[in-house]
Amino acid sequence: MKKNDILTPVGIALGIGLIFYAISQGGTGVGIFIDIPSFLITIGGSFAAVLITYDLETVKKIPSALKMTIVSVNVNKVDLVDQFKELSKIIRKDGILAIEQQITEMEDPFLKKGLELIVDGVDANDVKEILEIDLNEREKVYDSSSKIFKLWGSYAPAFGMVGTLIGLIQMLADMGSPDEIAAGMSTALITTLYGAFFTNLLFNPLGFNIEAKGEKEIEYLEMVVCGLQSIQNGDSVRAMEEKLITHLNEKDRKAYYENTSSEVA
Amino acid sequence: MKKNDILTPVGIALGIGLIFYAISQGGTGVGIFIDIPSFLITIGGSFAAVLITYDLETVKKIPSALKMTIVSVNVNKVDLVDQFKELSKIIRKDGILAIEQQITEMEDPFLKKGLELIVDGVDANDVKEILEIDLNEREKVYDSSSKIFKLWGSYAPAFGMVGTLIGLIQMLADMGSPDEIAAGMSTALITTLYGAFFTNLLFNPLGFNIEAKGEKEIEYLEMVVCGLQSIQNGDSVRAMEEKLITHLNEKDRKAYYENTSSEVA
Amino acid sequence: MKKNDILTPVGIALGIGLIFYAISQGGTGVGIFIDIPSFLITIGGSFAAVLITYDLETVKKIPSALKMTIVSVNVNKVDLVDQFKELSKIIRKDGILAIEQQITEMEDPFLKKGLELIVDGVDANDVKEILEIDLNEREKVYDSSSKIFKLWGSYAPAFGMVGTLIGLIQMLADMGSPDEIAAGMSTALITTLYGAFFTNLLFNPLGFNIEAKGEKEIEYLEMVVCGLQSIQNGDSVRAMEEKLITHLNEKDRKAYYENTSSEVA
Amino acid sequence: MKKNDILTPVGIALGIGLIFYAISQGGTGVGIFIDIPSFLITIGGSFAAVLITYDLETVKKIPSALKMTIVSVNVNKVDLVDQFKELSKIIRKDGILAIEQQITEMEDPFLKKGLELIVDGVDANDVKEILEIDLNEREKVYDSSSKIFKLWGSYAPAFGMVGTLIGLIQMLADMGSPDEIAAGMSTALITTLYGAFFTNLLFNPLGFNIEAKGEKEIEYLEMVVCGLQSIQNGDSVRAMEEKLITHLNEKDRKAYYENTSSEVA
Amino acid sequence: MKKNDILTPVGIALGIGLIFYAISQGGTGVGIFIDIPSFLITIGGSFAAVLITYDLETVKKIPSALKMTIVSVNVNKVDLVDQFKELSKIIRKDGILAIEQQITEMEDPFLKKGLELIVDGVDANDVKEILEIDLNEREKVYDSSSKIFKLWGSYAPAFGMVGTLIGLIQMLADMGSPDEIAAGMSTALITTLYGAFFTNLLFNPLGFNIEAKGEKEIEYLEMVVCGLQSIQNGDSVRAMEEKLITHLNEKDRKAYYENTSSEVA
Repeated sequence: MKKNDILTPVGIALGIGLIFYAISQGGTGVGIFIDIPSFLITIGGSFAAVLITYDLETVKKIPSALKMTIVSVNVNKVDLVDQFKELSKIIRKDGILAIEQQITEMEDPFLKKGLELIVDGVDANDVKEILEIDLNEREKVYDSSSKIFKLWGSYAPAFGMVGTLIGLIQMLADMGSPDEIAAGMSTALITTLYGAFFTNLLFNPLGFNIEAKGEKEIEYLEMVVCGLQSIQNGDSVRAMEEKLITHLNEKDRKAYYENTSSEVA
Repeated sequence: MKKNDILTPVGIALGIGLIFYAISQGGTGVGIFIDIPSFLITIGGSFAAVLITYDLETVKKIPSALKMTIVSVNVNKVDLVDQFKELSKIIRKDGILAIEQQITEMEDPFLKKGLELIVDGVDANDVKEILEIDLNEREKVYDSSSKIFKLWGSYAPAFGMVGTLIGLIQMLADMGSPDEIAAGMSTALITTLYGAFFTNLLFNPLGFNIEAKGEKEIEYLEMVVCGLQSIQNGDSVRAMEEKLITHLNEKDRKAYYENTSSEVA
Repeated sequence: MKKNDILTPVGIALGIGLIFYAISQGGTGVGIFIDIPSFLITIGGSFAAVLITYDLETVKKIPSALKMTIVSVNVNKVDLVDQFKELSKIIRKDGILAIEQQITEMEDPFLKKGLELIVDGVDANDVKEILEIDLNEREKVYDSSSKIFKLWGSYAPAFGMVGTLIGLIQMLADMGSPDEIAAGMSTALITTLYGAFFTNLLFNPLGFNIEAKGEKEIEYLEMVVCGLQSIQNGDSVRAMEEKLITHLNEKDRKAYYENTSSEVA
Repeated sequence: MKKNDILTPVGIALGIGLIFYAISQGGTGVGIFIDIPSFLITIGGSFAAVLITYDLETVKKIPSALKMTIVSVNVNKVDLVDQFKELSKIIRKDGILAIEQQITEMEDPFLKKGLELIVDGVDANDVKEILEIDLNEREKVYDSSSKIFKLWGSYAPAFGMVGTLIGLIQMLADMGSPDEIAAGMSTALITTLYGAFFTNLLFNPLGFNIEAKGEKEIEYLEMVVCGLQSIQNGDSVRAMEEKLITHLNEKDRKAYYENTSSEVA
Repeated sequence: MKKNDILTPVGIALGIGLIFYAISQGGTGVGIFIDIPSFLITIGGSFAAVLITYDLETVKKIPSALKMTIVSVNVNKVDLVDQFKELSKIIRKDGILAIEQQITEMEDPFLKKGLELIVDGVDANDVKEILEIDLNEREKVYDSSSKIFKLWGSYAPAFGMVGTLIGLIQMLADMGSPDEIAAGMSTALITTLYGAFFTNLLFNPLGFNIEAKGEKEIEYLEMVVCGLQSIQNGDSVRAMEEKLITHLNEKDRKAYYENTSSEVA
């Protein structure tokens, strides 16, 4: 159900490419921009701040948070309307127990769980409460993953500045010829560059990427909850369809109406 | 129903004009301010960050978001009061089904849908729920379009700074004559200028433009919901008018009372 | 009912006076600080950004927003308690219709409208709903007027920086003698000065001025709503007084008790 | 009931002492850091912005806001539990009217007023409404006092920068010997120093001081409301105690249990 | 029940180590970076601002807030499900009083108190109210501890800047040879370095550390409340399990199902 979010690597590649292009415009080679100590101070130092902020359990989630940024949330709202309509028709014809077969074949664990609760005859209020806690729990996963990168992105430029200040102070304390000073200044600025670069091409965009995906999934899950409540209320197929379509944006509505009319035809 | 928002291109033209005027005040020509590599680093780099942040579906919405900024939201609240009063009179005289003719001729899809639901005899709570989801869905369209430009506007100055740092580091690493240094510094600052300029004349104003339009449309839709609920409550024409007028600002209220009295006369 | 808010012009005069005093401390005359092109770039450029942000209808509100900053919100909460007590006594004696005379003489349109609705026998829930929408509408007028100045205040320093960058780039691209450089730098910094000055002496204080006035009026209107509901609940004069006094701050409470006791005496 | 908050003057003295210590580390005397014009520009200019922001009534509150920062909020939550328990015992024994004696001797006006309302037989909902408005009113006093200092603290560094820019522009426009330039630069920076110093040692800490005191008092008042509602509900002494203790933090709970057991003993 | 949060000291050690590594890359020794006066100005000055902000009671909490950062919140949600299931089974078999033995052996004071209230037959609404106040009280402890460090972290760079400005002004006022100037500048920058370093390696990460721990404990306590309500509602063991599992994240759910199936096996 999950596809790759190809734009994440494309954007990173484009951003790095443009930086190399920018460097190639100047007279110097790429060499002077690659400085392991500067990298360690900026990225290592800000990672140390991340370690202080979080406990081991949260730090261990960074790889899976990274994975979230390159996988897209495949939420087909148009298909969901059809799926609910179909379920509703079966229930109206053969009763609630008749959808057990459909449930077994479903992939989305949230929808599956909701339907199972309904089929098990769990009280409507309890179903609602359970789904809301579940939705809340998923929202927290996105929020906390997004926040790790955003915090990292707030520490990195600070450590870039710390690196530059250390270089500056050393240079000023021990002044040699103007040429040496300029070279020292040049090196000192590299940590600031690293801080700005990693924060604005990686940490912040990745943090906002996860945030946007979270919003998208939550919208989808709210639509699922709406459909499940519609089933439990015993809404007519028409009423359920009306409610679910409202969750679609303009483009999806058009797609839905085209699908539906072509089916009829 | 949509008119052009003429102030958007006027503001952009004025802003660009003033920049050219500012440049003309100095001794150099415009030429030194036009630098394709600097443009690629600042705008291209920040666009790369936008690509990382969003998925393909959202990035594809940028052109339609741009279009939103030059189209004005034509929401005539004064006319809306008259429209609702007329509908209310017909309903009081000939019953709810008598407005089917009016519905067919309506342009505003939100009002149309609301009235259709009422005519179809949908339950008042369901009508309210459906309209609120719909309103929410429209709000999200404005919010997400506005946020794309604001995020871009937060990345652009950062990439402007990255460009300037790269230039500075190169210049300091390879110092020549003071004249060369100054020229290198001059070029290095152009990316910072681009970042400040594009963010403050384009990205942020466009983002806030969409936000303001969203607020305006939502206010209008809330007034429509108020009128629809008034119909469903069976309010008197007088009571409905009183409620709707409250949604008007001072200027619109005056305009409304002048209209109404001239009609009577 | 509206008096002048004398502190707004006093503050502006004081601020400008101090700036002239600051300039007079240095060796140069005021002349070098008056630069029309710098003004056009900073204030004109940020105004262009305001034009892009808003539509014509909103931009036209700037003069009336400016007027709001020099007019004070005259909300006498102590008098309001007396007014409500008097109304309550009349109603208890001669019935609700007996206050029609009082209503005609009232100046405050909000209180007037509320009482008219009650006298007309409008349902208590509808009165509450109408007053809340009205209060909300007034809050929006203050919020949007305040936001225009705050946004302008966020654009102005950015255009000040754009002006300074343009000057710097030109100066560095075309270096002459050190004296010329310093003079160019001096001119370049004037746009930054303008941006900081206009934002911090005008745009931001004016924006916060309107915000503070809005909060004050809303507090007053909430007290009016409290009194109107007390009338509609049929509260005793004593109970109404108790509720209304709670809305007064310590100083106003003292003033009220002194008034009341002197009246009794 | 109010004691001095000794930490406010201690902190100010410590901060000023450290600044003098810092100055004494350099070669120059304190003299060059005392500059009346710089003080007038930075503090006077930002005060002008405060005058523009607020009306006379609010500006007049600054002295009493200053007084709030050196007076501590003496809220003894442990004693409050005992006080309520005692009241509850009297009421259970001799009825609600038996506490009139206790009410006369009380110092806290909020608790006093709440008990008076209950003794007067005011309806439970009205009591709750009145207490909530009152609590809200007190919260606003803290919020608005805190906001004055925070706004002043946002204006002061801006006027510090305005002063520095004026000095810089004059110095660059009229360059003399390098020594003169350096001295001019030195003077120009003093306004920036004043802006940073007053904001971070006075305006912001005083603003947050009032905010923290407000939060503390509101927590206390919420506990009073809880106890008053418990009386009106007719809760048992045990149930009331249980509810009130929950409002205590860990340290206060321990203190309370020690007190109680020692009393019993 | 509390374990050490080993990542806090590890992160601090790593951060300090990287700074020493950065210094070792330059030509000067570590000596020039250790400057007691600079430390006093930056950390002492910002601590003075903390003293002004808070009262004695809050300042005394700093050591215990520091202790919170190195102790981990040991909240085993998986075990909690088992614990509640066991309790539920006992209650269903032998009635509510049968769990008194279990309560005595419990370590978590929150769960213990909740169960005691239920066993004592306290009304469900009162139990809910008491638990919510308690939860709220614990949240405040985390929030206020976190805020102290964050405020300190906002003051420290400002005092770093104050120190640098003092140094700069002295240096410019009393210019000697270029070498002396550079050395003075070098010293002046050390306070800025200290401000950036302490804020970004200590104050901010420690503040966010406490915030994250607070969120974690609150989530746990919300799960406890959910279980307690389930007991009071008389939910079946199956229904309670279903509700509690929803509070687990994906990883914990897997762990729970593995545990449960292995137990059965």
